[in-house]
Amino acid sequence: MTRQQLIQTIREKRSFLCVGLDLDYDKMPIPGPKPWPDIMLDFVRNVIEQTEDLCVAYKINTAFYEVLQYQGWDLMQSVLDEIPGEVFVILDAKRGDVGHSSEKYAQALLDNMPVDAVTVSPYMGRDSIAPFLSREDKWAAILALTSNKGSTDFQMLDVGGKKLYERVLETAATWGTPDNTMFVVGATHPEHLKTVRSIVPDHFLLVPGVGAQGGDLKAVCDAAITKDCGLLVNVSRSIMYAEDVRAAAKHYRQQMEEILDTVMPPSPADVK
Amino acid sequence: MTRQQLIQTIREKRSFLCVGLDLDYDKMPIPGPKPWPDIMLDFVRNVIEQTEDLCVAYKINTAFYEVLQYQGWDLMQSVLDEIPGEVFVILDAKRGDVGHSSEKYAQALLDNMPVDAVTVSPYMGRDSIAPFLSREDKWAAILALTSNKGSTDFQMLDVGGKKLYERVLETAATWGTPDNTMFVVGATHPEHLKTVRSIVPDHFLLVPGVGAQGGDLKAVCDAAITKDCGLLVNVSRSIMYAEDVRAAAKHYRQQMEEILDTVMPPSPADVK
Repeated sequence: MTRQQLIQTIREKRSFLCVGLDLDYDKMPIPGPKPWPDIMLDFVRNVIEQTEDLCVAYKINTAFYEVLQYQGWDLMQSVLDEIPGEVFVILDAKRGDVGHSSEKYAQALLDNMPVDAVTVSPYMGRDSIAPFLSREDKWAAILALTSNKGSTDFQMLDVGGKKLYERVLETAATWGTPDNTMFVVGATHPEHLKTVRSIVPDHFLLVPGVGAQGGDLKAVCDAAITKDCGLLVNVSRSIMYAEDVRAAAKHYRQQMEEILDTVMPPSPADVK
Repeated sequence: MTRQQLIQTIREKRSFLCVGLDLDYDKMPIPGPKPWPDIMLDFVRNVIEQTEDLCVAYKINTAFYEVLQYQGWDLMQSVLDEIPGEVFVILDAKRGDVGHSSEKYAQALLDNMPVDAVTVSPYMGRDSIAPFLSREDKWAAILALTSNKGSTDFQMLDVGGKKLYERVLETAATWGTPDNTMFVVGATHPEHLKTVRSIVPDHFLLVPGVGAQGGDLKAVCDAAITKDCGLLVNVSRSIMYAEDVRAAAKHYRQQMEEILDTVMPPSPADVK
């Protein structure tokens, strides 16, 4: 999906919600009447049906599928096949390797799967990410400032007057363009989001950490929303495992709609 | 495998060679008389038979299997089943995620697979690596200074008078012990290996970059070998795709034997 298509989808759906499909075997009603992959696929199909008109993106964390071995990879492909074509799909894989191995990952995750973006780790530098930036209309979502506790161990280190995550943003922004690069910045660091936005004014940010991890949607938007929105805010567990999945998704989408009305008011052309 | 068992294996086999089993579909004689997974398994089985007495470890890069989708994961498990029990097995996956997702990766790669170690990326900090350090007799191999060109983009940045990779070594060494932690340091940076060794005098180093990537075995050993050896030197393409696999492995093992004779002379008890 192109950047313009993504922005248009946000404009039309009045949402910048990304729903995390971290399908957890340990939370499934297993053993059930069907084989476990079918039970899990039924579960995620319901989440997609309840949310597809409310969100603009789905994010799939590969860890939850990889733990189920080759059957998990098969299941992941089935889940991807359930997602409607107009929704942006992010494979949250956090890959990154020497160039020729990263090329294999890019083939594995961007060429062989119906996804728009893969999350990648910047530690190994440019050649580890370049293959993810070389596919037409496909994106790399590069880790910058993550939402977890360990994000302070290295990402916040002072590197010549700037923090490491700022250097990662500055440097990695030169490897691609806002058309094929987004950055992962956790909602749990609202005080740094203004800095992030000043370094990458035009890039989309993929923002995890709202919901179970405690990040605040309004604080994120106050700091980092742009005239093109420029945000995909991810909520995983708080929607997927809510008692009422649709109500949980609506809760976030309602807040997003109000915020979008101020920065990106609906035009008559957007009404479908 | 424990650290003591690994050291004893090195002592007995007179080798610290790790053979990379990066089984590349594009280099296989496909189409052949058999289905492609069988052709690939035959190929790797031959490499293992030719090298198992000459090496102490095998390293499997998950990218080469992931690119073959769920059949690749199935193939990877078949390859792992071919490896004799006394050889140390490293899954070169370069994973790392927020704690609860990394726990899934640790289950996927350390609990569900017959492997001893998984390579992990440090960018996300302690909680992203902790699950890999919590399994008995299993190891995390943490990226410190990698062998690729992009290693200079961030790993060499000055962080308060030290380089980032030095800070990663110092900090990550406190998360585990030399019994469950090794560090990945590329052979392509021999001038930094002395610094690495001064920061982590007792840790095993997993050293890629000898062979196709141009690193020099003798320079690596001069800088970083210890009385317990403390090195696993990986060679992938230069052995796996050599015209004579066994001769290629012997070439490296011969050099290692000579080096070990000086730092770790054979004792009568080691002769089997």
